[in-house]
Amino acid sequence: MAEHLYIQVAERIEQLIEKEVIKIGAKLPSVRTLSKENGISISTAFQAYYHLENKGLIEPRPKSGYYVKFSSKRLLDVPKPCKPMKKASEVSTSEMIVEVFHNMTSEDIVRFSVAAPPDILLPGAKLTKAMMHAMRTTPNAGANYESLQGNHNLRLQIARQSINWGGAISEDDIIITSGCMDALTLCLSATTQPGDVIALESPAYCGAFQLAESLGLKVLEIPTHPKHGVDIEYLDKAIPKFKIKACIFVPNFNNPLGAQMPDENKKALVDIINKYDIALIEDDIYGDLYFGKHRPINCKSFDKNGNVLLCNSFSKSIAPGYRVGWTVPGKYYDKVLRLKLNHSIATATLPQAAIGYFLENGRYEHHLRNMRKALHTQCLRYQQAIYEYFPEDTCITRPAGGFVLWAELNPAVNTFELYEAALKRKISLAPGRIFSLQDRYNNCMRLSFGQPFNKRINDSLKTLGKLIQQSL
Amino acid sequence: MAEHLYIQVAERIEQLIEKEVIKIGAKLPSVRTLSKENGISISTAFQAYYHLENKGLIEPRPKSGYYVKFSSKRLLDVPKPCKPMKKASEVSTSEMIVEVFHNMTSEDIVRFSVAAPPDILLPGAKLTKAMMHAMRTTPNAGANYESLQGNHNLRLQIARQSINWGGAISEDDIIITSGCMDALTLCLSATTQPGDVIALESPAYCGAFQLAESLGLKVLEIPTHPKHGVDIEYLDKAIPKFKIKACIFVPNFNNPLGAQMPDENKKALVDIINKYDIALIEDDIYGDLYFGKHRPINCKSFDKNGNVLLCNSFSKSIAPGYRVGWTVPGKYYDKVLRLKLNHSIATATLPQAAIGYFLENGRYEHHLRNMRKALHTQCLRYQQAIYEYFPEDTCITRPAGGFVLWAELNPAVNTFELYEAALKRKISLAPGRIFSLQDRYNNCMRLSFGQPFNKRINDSLKTLGKLIQQSL
Repeated sequence: MAEHLYIQVAERIEQLIEKEVIKIGAKLPSVRTLSKENGISISTAFQAYYHLENKGLIEPRPKSGYYVKFSSKRLLDVPKPCKPMKKASEVSTSEMIVEVFHNMTSEDIVRFSVAAPPDILLPGAKLTKAMMHAMRTTPNAGANYESLQGNHNLRLQIARQSINWGGAISEDDIIITSGCMDALTLCLSATTQPGDVIALESPAYCGAFQLAESLGLKVLEIPTHPKHGVDIEYLDKAIPKFKIKACIFVPNFNNPLGAQMPDENKKALVDIINKYDIALIEDDIYGDLYFGKHRPINCKSFDKNGNVLLCNSFSKSIAPGYRVGWTVPGKYYDKVLRLKLNHSIATATLPQAAIGYFLENGRYEHHLRNMRKALHTQCLRYQQAIYEYFPEDTCITRPAGGFVLWAELNPAVNTFELYEAALKRKISLAPGRIFSLQDRYNNCMRLSFGQPFNKRINDSLKTLGKLIQQSL
Repeated sequence: MAEHLYIQVAERIEQLIEKEVIKIGAKLPSVRTLSKENGISISTAFQAYYHLENKGLIEPRPKSGYYVKFSSKRLLDVPKPCKPMKKASEVSTSEMIVEVFHNMTSEDIVRFSVAAPPDILLPGAKLTKAMMHAMRTTPNAGANYESLQGNHNLRLQIARQSINWGGAISEDDIIITSGCMDALTLCLSATTQPGDVIALESPAYCGAFQLAESLGLKVLEIPTHPKHGVDIEYLDKAIPKFKIKACIFVPNFNNPLGAQMPDENKKALVDIINKYDIALIEDDIYGDLYFGKHRPINCKSFDKNGNVLLCNSFSKSIAPGYRVGWTVPGKYYDKVLRLKLNHSIATATLPQAAIGYFLENGRYEHHLRNMRKALHTQCLRYQQAIYEYFPEDTCITRPAGGFVLWAELNPAVNTFELYEAALKRKISLAPGRIFSLQDRYNNCMRLSFGQPFNKRINDSLKTLGKLIQQSL
């Protein structure tokens, strides 16, 4: 679908700002001129400027017109990737993680720590309708077990959408799970034995370390670039050296960096995986939340041998509380299905049916379009506030999708201490240390930009900036 | 609550039949006499006889009155418990289990294999109401994550009911899970390391073996009496000898025997567990479905040291498809909670809220009362049909609750072959072999009496009987 006209015009202006053709502080053409030169109506010209203003890139000055306020060129530096590890680590459970995520549902805290969508971006009313429909149409109002594989219509809808990420799967390739963590747990259990070594990104989603620990696995962290993702050349050498049996990577907008692996790297990664015949568990939970023109493809789309186990869920895009995820486990299909039977028998019937209905009616695409726009805008506004309030030596990543960005502060700052100080002011953040098994990232933190930008968020980021200054 | 008058009268007659004071074939007092002698109305007297007729114990003969038709004394012999094992076994995945439970949701098969409640016994309409209420009252219509521990109201209701099984727990002792299998998985993961030995009943629920395998555990099977449950004297010696780290037992109406462990054995079992300071994972999923006067107590009610991890769910009593279970993991509480965070983050929000509301409104007790009566009647009718159609040397257990009974056939019968032959006639059963790791129980089978007794069930049991005869 073509973008609205006003967005097309706004994007051209944005590019000019980014390339510094129009510099910060410069005056933009009047609305009348913009309208005339672009052959658009006055109201479309206004909409284009409103759009850019909403993104925090331009500002109106009374009785004068619009001026350039910010350029993404002005953003802070990007952090450097970490050094490789000397050996694979036994996972040590971090009390810190429990501490940080303990307050997950508390409403009076500004939760920069949680990478979950805020209420306002979730399609509450439409979901309720879908659930009512599910109760009316499911045998025995959904009280019975769903099949082990999961709701047929939902699997069909997921298969239909696979074209968006370069896939061509059928409903029989898919297993529904209780959220993405459940999918990851089943896939990791299916591909490893206790004592095995697996590879994760560094920094990586702290839940993946915890999962590895609970399955008795060792973890090698692979240096991951804030822009291009996992260092695949290093990985190629590390797999035989450390006898890696499986990798869990998040190639699209990974957590916590927000990095997006280029398509050619995805292909190369799958080639490496196939060369050593090991498993790639691909967590694509943020894939639908891209800020660019198109949905990024998956590693799974290059998978000919069944070595890629794709995992995903609707927890980031529709309803975390429904706990509906899915996996396309390739050649591990039978094993994953059996593990699902052993560990949980089936996934809850009604949430699956409701989401299947939601997808079937084209509501998902419409909902995602709005959500992506909102998140992209939020991402920019957060970055701008960080630029304004944080010390100049702060580095931040440039997420191209998802919910989170990663900030590297002056080495003198300890972000766990910062976390504790911030919590006293009702602000929570995720300290960098929990995203690694090594004693690293102590001066880093993950900030979720899931909450819409407003005065409270602005003030909280300002407070964070002050706290950072104080700790220097 | 006192039983209805007609049931009190019926029970007295039932006792007389069982003690053979009134023998099979004997004529019962006329309705008029029964009314007069018991000081009850004619209609109450009729109700008492209808009740007994429904249970298959008496039958009306035209123009003559009621006659005794069956006594539980006449039931077939009880099977013998197995011999102890020489050593703990590595678990071998059984293709058989996948084969047997593959057709779980197929409607055109008479499923004696599935220990799940039939649609007709589930409170569909009331659950739908509870779900609507949950959507109206839960923040953001249930789209958000529930807390890690689970819905507060549901935990409160579960805690209130603990008085029924001799417990005195608070809502803070409980963790909600995605069904009972999820609770067992979390508890077993929390109490063992790969390579450890655990104890199960013999025969035991096949899912427990599969679970043990998937966690890399070895299993020692403990001889289990069809009437008294686990042989605790043997267990007392086996724990130090085999270095058992945890037991998973089903003391109330265990699956597949339907045995109920006497209360004094439960106490002794907890003493043994405490003596060696190991974990007892108590699966009480059938506990609410007793046929007697009172709910049996749990081992958990004797637990002072926190070594008992009680697991349960609403899958057998309200709605399997809701996947709502719970655990009271004693001193392993923190560990179980952390594992839940690592493996699934949270349980689906709305099903929990709906069941909490269902319980809160006293609907559960009312529903259970009807369900227990129906299941008890079904149990008797199935036993009577088995008595009629199966060979004389068949032994069957006497379930005092739950859904399943266990039949031991002539040693010449192979029940997996019987399973295959029966499936061709659209009947499925659970062959005994899948309830052990040893090459035993090949002439046994588990039959679920969950489906209401009717002509189709009667004919299917008759067909089974013929197939058994043919295989001799």
